[in-house]
Order: sequence, then structure tokens, then C-alpha cells
Amino acid sequence: MAAAPDPAPGRARAAPLLGIVALDLGRYYQAPYAGLLMANAGADVIKVEAVGGEPMRSRRNSGNSYASVMLNSNKRDITLNLKHARGRDLLRELVKRADVLLENFAPGVMDRMGIGYAALREQNPRLVYGSGTGFGLSGPDRDGLALDPVIQAHAGVAAVTGAADGPPFKAGPAIADFLSGTHLYAGVMTALFERERTGLGRLVEVAMQETIYPTLASNLAAMHYQGLAATRTGNRHGTVAPYNLYRARDGHVAVLCTTEEQWHKLLLAMGKPELQHDPRFANNKARLQNLQDTDAAVEAWTSELTRADVFEIAKRAGIPAAAVRELDEVMRDPHMHQRGMLMWIEHPELGKMVVPRSPIRYQDSAFPEFRVAAELGEHNRQIYCDWLGLDESELDQLRADGTI
Amino acid sequence: MAAAPDPAPGRARAAPLLGIVALDLGRYYQAPYAGLLMANAGADVIKVEAVGGEPMRSRRNSGNSYASVMLNSNKRDITLNLKHARGRDLLRELVKRADVLLENFAPGVMDRMGIGYAALREQNPRLVYGSGTGFGLSGPDRDGLALDPVIQAHAGVAAVTGAADGPPFKAGPAIADFLSGTHLYAGVMTALFERERTGLGRLVEVAMQETIYPTLASNLAAMHYQGLAATRTGNRHGTVAPYNLYRARDGHVAVLCTTEEQWHKLLLAMGKPELQHDPRFANNKARLQNLQDTDAAVEAWTSELTRADVFEIAKRAGIPAAAVRELDEVMRDPHMHQRGMLMWIEHPELGKMVVPRSPIRYQDSAFPEFRVAAELGEHNRQIYCDWLGLDESELDQLRADGTI
Repeated sequence: MAAAPDPAPGRARAAPLLGIVALDLGRYYQAPYAGLLMANAGADVIKVEAVGGEPMRSRRNSGNSYASVMLNSNKRDITLNLKHARGRDLLRELVKRADVLLENFAPGVMDRMGIGYAALREQNPRLVYGSGTGFGLSGPDRDGLALDPVIQAHAGVAAVTGAADGPPFKAGPAIADFLSGTHLYAGVMTALFERERTGLGRLVEVAMQETIYPTLASNLAAMHYQGLAATRTGNRHGTVAPYNLYRARDGHVAVLCTTEEQWHKLLLAMGKPELQHDPRFANNKARLQNLQDTDAAVEAWTSELTRADVFEIAKRAGIPAAAVRELDEVMRDPHMHQRGMLMWIEHPELGKMVVPRSPIRYQDSAFPEFRVAAELGEHNRQIYCDWLGLDESELDQLRADGTI
Repeated sequence: MAAAPDPAPGRARAAPLLGIVALDLGRYYQAPYAGLLMANAGADVIKVEAVGGEPMRSRRNSGNSYASVMLNSNKRDITLNLKHARGRDLLRELVKRADVLLENFAPGVMDRMGIGYAALREQNPRLVYGSGTGFGLSGPDRDGLALDPVIQAHAGVAAVTGAADGPPFKAGPAIADFLSGTHLYAGVMTALFERERTGLGRLVEVAMQETIYPTLASNLAAMHYQGLAATRTGNRHGTVAPYNLYRARDGHVAVLCTTEEQWHKLLLAMGKPELQHDPRFANNKARLQNLQDTDAAVEAWTSELTRADVFEIAKRAGIPAAAVRELDEVMRDPHMHQRGMLMWIEHPELGKMVVPRSPIRYQDSAFPEFRVAAELGEHNRQIYCDWLGLDESELDQLRADGTI
């Protein structure tokens, strides 16, 4: 192992994945998000798309959808028809030169085409192969068709979201897709680390359903202690008060206190320090027993303020509270823009829009220079000719017969 | 790099993180979940707790809460008072021997105690230091107090969850905690991989808020194309039909069709293939224009069936559909138990309960042998005496003066 000299703190360092090549065969969010995180850590991520483009691209009947532009920054892009024998040959050639392959086809799809992990490891035993599925590569439910809302229903998210006396709701964001995409990236990195020590790659497997289970820890605990009925509590919490969404002048805010210290700070901010001595609010247990009064006292304060006021006061006073922000506010968030997590771009088709970089930062390394999501097949020549060594006439032939 | 011989496929391999030592200073879910994923990948994870135990442990006024048992399997456990100078000295000694440190204190807490990354890298330049926070280590909102529901409100989750004409809801699971915990693990692994090549560790930083943004891709796209009002759609989807939660005989089911092929399969399963030719349902656009009729047609079918029937039929027929399952059903899920993701244990205090392993699997390596979450300070002697080399009388003294 070559130990580089210790650079001075603050001095720029190369991105951590410089020199790593990943083939991203992902569709929609799960595997493409893993690819995005790799690209923002400095890897050369090559998106390998069907000849007509992956579904995320075409939903808006154009080559670039809002989501595909969000998810595919800093990747190169090639087309490849895996239903053609020649296409599968080309994939094998790519695999020989790559470190990582990411895919989220249904279980068995790659195997049935003869390009599953068992086959590809013959081409490259150092390959780390990341498989993202809904239910996993084994077990009785393996072949269930998994889309984010289906997994949210099946895995327990819908049952614990919404009011206790109302219908179940799915969580608005695609949490099963992104939780599993993040686990997929983490698993791939763990196997890449291991490869440095053993010289061997791995199949790494992540099931969307299984990434949900740990996130239910609080709800499962409530069920254990208080029974099933305690698992859906709207915006309240069965054992903490105050803890709710409250009305503000211009919408809602979240306010909660998990310690007495926070409650006392909140009372000070509310200008009601005397309530500290009110027996209804003497401690968390008393506040739970007087939940309506507790919530009313907090809302009497929030309802006189704007959401932004509540957030600023809470930040200064050390109270856990924030605005329920609409998506346009989130998209324009000065904090995330200042930190470089979000950036405005002018997209040739979509116009002015915001793209995310990565929620993972490596101190002393800036994100790689931004490159907008590529057009379909934009790097076919670079990859197939410059990298794999095909000549121009072969490229033309591949295009003509629909292989790329 | 030592290249081990290629084992036969299916032959057992060591867990990928065997030999890696991580100090888990985490509280509640974010950093402790990163530690859990490391432990299940074979790392030696040492949970470093305050002398009274971390908050997750004490919520139930006992040494073991349901959540702390879920999150801390396969970790060793020591106590350490970082407010004592001697405690901070001991942390520095631990850091000299460790590969990874995980923490999710508020920004600046570790620095103010003189044991932030800048100080610890002096002890061990190979250390990978993972920092999990709510808003990040920089920026105007850095010091906001972040708990999962606060981040859900601030980051846009609540705004897109719930009915279009109803109040905002937080998602029931602690998605900000766990999304960020997973990113934290991924970032740490990326830096560990890099360290094999450079010999140098890193500070890796993850903000809860920023891990939410990408999960809103579909909602942000809806806003881009249709405006802000399109971002909260209950259980429907603005551009896909059918897509909803429907009543079944014993609860609700999720059903959606993203392709015409799936719609045709659904009609066959419903015993209504003739509706394929009904102009109201001729294609996705027509179904959106006749949304009430579309939903009514699907619900006429689901309402005659149990949730389990719908899931089994859908699995066989290739329709994306599943039951809205209650948490007790999820906890008992035969599929996840068969796959080894979930297991029953008999806990001495909590009784019969289910614990998760890890959603990340490494083919040919079983999960490490299960060890139940340790008691507070259970491994003080092992770590402080056997590993750091203190003698018994020193250990007694540390206990006596409240340092451990």
C-alpha cells in the first residue's frame, strides 16, 4: 500500500473514487442514485441504457426528463441492446475493464440473458456487482413486482403514516427507492474496500423492502410497549409531548421537546416561563396526560408567527422546531445552495432548474466539476472506439443493426 | 495488494470488514445505524456511551429499550465520560487503535471538547471520521436542532405527504435519521477504500436535510411540469393511473400500473379483459381523464378480496400490487425471516422480540454470528484492560471517579 505524504489540513485532495469505473445499468431511482453518489465521489460512471433510453428518460416523451437530469449528472452515457448477442459481448468487454456494475432489473433477468454475476465474474473476478431489487434475490416473495409505493405498502410505511383515525398514506418521497439505492452504494463500497485486501470482487445484494424495516424502530417500539394501535399517531408521538405539527400564520411548523431543558427553552421563547410551574405541564408525563392543553399552549404561540420566524427563533434558542416548507422553498433553500448541495443550471430543454450534488462530502475535496446529465448515447464513440478499440465502421454497423 | 486465490462460487468467505475497528459514539438512530451496518459486515464496532447510557437506551427507564436492542446488535459496549480530561485521553488512545469513528453530536461539540477531527487526526492520520448532523458542518442553518420530524418538515417530506386537501403529515418512519445513517456508512466506506490507496483517512460529513432532497425527485418533477399544487397527491400520482391505495375486504392494498402491459394483466386478473377496449381506459391519458371510473373499476375488484389474495395474485400475474400491511404483519414477514434479515430473539428484559440484521448482503458470506445488544459498559474490562493495557486498579479508579 503506497502511503502518500500527509497533506496540510485544508489542502485540496483528489476525489476518493478517482480511477474507479462503474457501469450503471440502473433504471429509475434505485441503482441510478447509487451511480450518482459514485460519480460525485469522483468515479467514472458510465450509464448503460437501452437503445430507446431507460424509462425515467422517456416519461415526458423527450430525451431528458426532470428526474433523469437530477439523477444522472456527471455520468457518461452509452446505449446498448442486451437482447442482441453482440450487445451482450460488448457488455462482457466493458466488464473486463470496469470495477463495478450496478443494476436493478427484476431478479433473474441478467442471469437469463447469460450476463448475471456468475457469468460476469468469469470475465473479471475483481468485479463488484451490485444488485438492487424489491424483495431480494431469494425467498418466497422474490418475484413480486416492486415499485416504490408497493414496497411502502408492503413494508409498513403506509400503515404508520397518517392520522390514527384516518386512512393510511404513503410517504410522499420515494423513500424505498432511495433508501435502497443508498444501501446499494454502501454495500458496493464495502466490497470495493475488501477487494483492495483480497483481490476479489463480490455480488452485493440489497432489497428495497429490507431497507425499510430499521426505519420503523420507533413505531415497532411503540407496538411492543403499547400495542398495534400506537403505531400510527399522525404527527404526534405516543410518549413525547409537545411533538406535533402546529398552525403558523402562513402554514404549519413542527415543534417537539424531547427533554425538560428544551421545554423550558420553548416556554421562554413563548414568553410564558410561568407555565414551567403549571402542574399540567410539570413534566413529560403530565404533558401527555394534558395533551390537548399542551398542544393548545404551543399553538397559541406558533399561530401568531410566520413559519420562518419560528425557525429562526428555534435555531437561536436551541428548540427543535422548523417550518413545514413547500417544495419551492426547499428547492431554493439558501443553506443547501450555499453549501453546494444544490445548484441552479440552465438546461437546454428543461430551462432553469435545480440539481443536487451529493449528501456525502469528503473534507478537502470539492465535488468533481459539474457535468450535466448526458444525452442518450452521447459517449458511444468515446467508450466503444476510444476505450474498447472498435473502429468507426464497426460503430456504424452497431448503430445500423440496433445493437447500440 | 495480496490477491487471494479465487474461491469456488458458493464457498464461504470471510465478512468484508473483518479486522476493521469502529468507535460508535452515536446517539439514537443516525450514527448507531451506520455502526449496525458495519457490525453486520464484520467490523468490530465498539459503542462508546456516556456513563449513564445514551438517550436511546434510557427512554424506557431501563438499560435496554426496544430500539437500542434493535440498533446495537453485534457491537461491544463501553462507557466513557468525555467531559473528564482523562476520558478524552482515553478516547485519543482508542482512536490510535481504531480505523473509524462515528458520531452524530451537534456541530462543534467534539471540537469544543478538543477531540474533533482536527485533533484526532494528529493521533491517527489513517482515521476515517464520520460526522452525522441535521444541517451540516457549515452554512447559516448549521446550528438548528435537528430531530427527525423537524428535518422532515424543513426538508419537504411533510409538504408532500397526505391528501391534497388535507393537512401535511410527517412520514411515519424516521426516514431522515436512517437515510442519513446509511449515507454516513457509505461515505465512511468510500473513505476507507481510498485509505487503502493513499494511506490517509478523512473527515466525511453527512447532513440529514440533504439526504432527503434526492428522494423528492418525482415530486420536484411534478412541480416543474405542473406547479406546486401537484406536489401533494395523497396516494395518487399526477401522471399515472391506476395508482392508489384501494379498499380490500380486510384493509387496503396498493395497486399501480406504469405500463399498458401491466394494465392489461390487471384487467385479466380482474376478469374484465373487455375493459381494454373501453375508451375511458384506452391508455394512461384516458385513465387519468377518467380517474374516478378507473379507481372505481380497480376497487370493485380489490374490495372483494383479502389483502393477501391481492398480493399473491399480483405476484403471479406480474402486476405491481401489495397489501398495506400492519406492523405486526411486517415484523412476522415469512420472507424476511426466511432470508435472515429478521430473527426472533428472547431478550432477558424485553422478552420475545424481532431484531433486524442488515439490508446489505455479501454473497458467500453469512452475517456474523448474532450477538445481542450489550449491556451498558459490558466490555469495559475487555477494551480498557485487554486492549488499551490498563490494569485492574486503574479500571477501578476510572469507575470510582465517574470517567467510565
